[in-house]
Amino acid sequence: MKKMIIASTSTVYGSSYLEYLLPTLKTFFKGVHTLVFIPFARPGGVSYDGYTEVVQKAFSKIDINVKGVHEYNNVNDAILNAEAIFTGGGNTFELVNQLYKNDIIDTLKKVINNGTPYLGTSAGSNICGISMMNTNDMPIVYPPSFVTLGCIPFNINAHYLDPIEGSKHMGETRETRIKEYHVFNEVPVLGLREGSWLSVEGNSITLKGEHSARLFQQNLKPVELESGVEVALR
Amino acid sequence: MKKMIIASTSTVYGSSYLEYLLPTLKTFFKGVHTLVFIPFARPGGVSYDGYTEVVQKAFSKIDINVKGVHEYNNVNDAILNAEAIFTGGGNTFELVNQLYKNDIIDTLKKVINNGTPYLGTSAGSNICGISMMNTNDMPIVYPPSFVTLGCIPFNINAHYLDPIEGSKHMGETRETRIKEYHVFNEVPVLGLREGSWLSVEGNSITLKGEHSARLFQQNLKPVELESGVEVALR
Repeated sequence: MKKMIIASTSTVYGSSYLEYLLPTLKTFFKGVHTLVFIPFARPGGVSYDGYTEVVQKAFSKIDINVKGVHEYNNVNDAILNAEAIFTGGGNTFELVNQLYKNDIIDTLKKVINNGTPYLGTSAGSNICGISMMNTNDMPIVYPPSFVTLGCIPFNINAHYLDPIEGSKHMGETRETRIKEYHVFNEVPVLGLREGSWLSVEGNSITLKGEHSARLFQQNLKPVELESGVEVALR
Repeated sequence: MKKMIIASTSTVYGSSYLEYLLPTLKTFFKGVHTLVFIPFARPGGVSYDGYTEVVQKAFSKIDINVKGVHEYNNVNDAILNAEAIFTGGGNTFELVNQLYKNDIIDTLKKVINNGTPYLGTSAGSNICGISMMNTNDMPIVYPPSFVTLGCIPFNINAHYLDPIEGSKHMGETRETRIKEYHVFNEVPVLGLREGSWLSVEGNSITLKGEHSARLFQQNLKPVELESGVEVALR
């Protein structure tokens, strides 16, 4: 049975990396000894080793060993044989580029659908949807496709931001951008605020954390989903 | 001689469409009767006709007639024969997608380099650089390439925003995103604040408007360029 945690962010303001999620992760990853970490999104251009160290530090608090997928001779086998998988945040374009370059999109999708526990934060959450078309990231590399895992039947907008009242900035609000997306595409989009995450168990997807989430569907008014409810599309 | 105005935004807070630029445009487009407008970026998903109407309304104040490039039977000929060209803002991914679909990238580049006066705002400015890799827009469509006109020797980040002091949001700042870009790319990036524009005359590129601009070059500290100075790369 599919088992995923899809989080808006790794870090909430004023706390350390993954801190707010650790109690949840302790239960979620119960029995897991070694987690395979996918560091491809490289936040701030950090090295794969440097990023993996940060993740190891957080997971050592719940007695889980972390190994970067780049440390394995065969990346595909590493994914196939993983007890559990975590894809960290950073730049979604570079993450997706590397998933294609390493040819592991299909394998990743398969093992997640078969029940390998999966954690994603930010860019690592964006890739769980149908496409990466609702990322906020800058297109700093050109990936061979925007199509992603499709392990959930909608797209994620991580770090969802409400319009800032009284702002004098003329750049588009997040809501405007997602509405533009729906001029060209049908796939629903869930705006996940920082501190929120989705808990996926098989086909059931439940919103968790301290905030509501904003669901955008083509030709429908956006709706707020309260924490604790199942995400139900029209 | 190349003659371009490359503006961060069409509209500054509290004034109407293009209003702040009209005195400049009156001189810049002196002698032009009909401007060819490229509406492909479709802000908010507006129709080509609807967008062209907005632009016509602004340009009628300086007695210039506007015709949307989509109104011509042959888009390529429309660009080739244009007295002057304006590409408006909206979504850069869709704009670039349509430039490729209509196969006018090379023609547009040629006529601009040969001296057809060109105005770009926002997405219409992003395409003047080497690539669209520093857009802030959401990747709502997948264009065949991120390579753009290359009429200036660096990329534009339109609507440049300084980090918001005291923000609790954990999404990346604009500066962080541009620094990530320079992990993977060498092309310099100019962060143009709303209300600023570049005036291009041949190979001379001068910053105009009320703000300084922030120049990012790989492996160098970002620098502030004052309004009125020529943009000089290292």
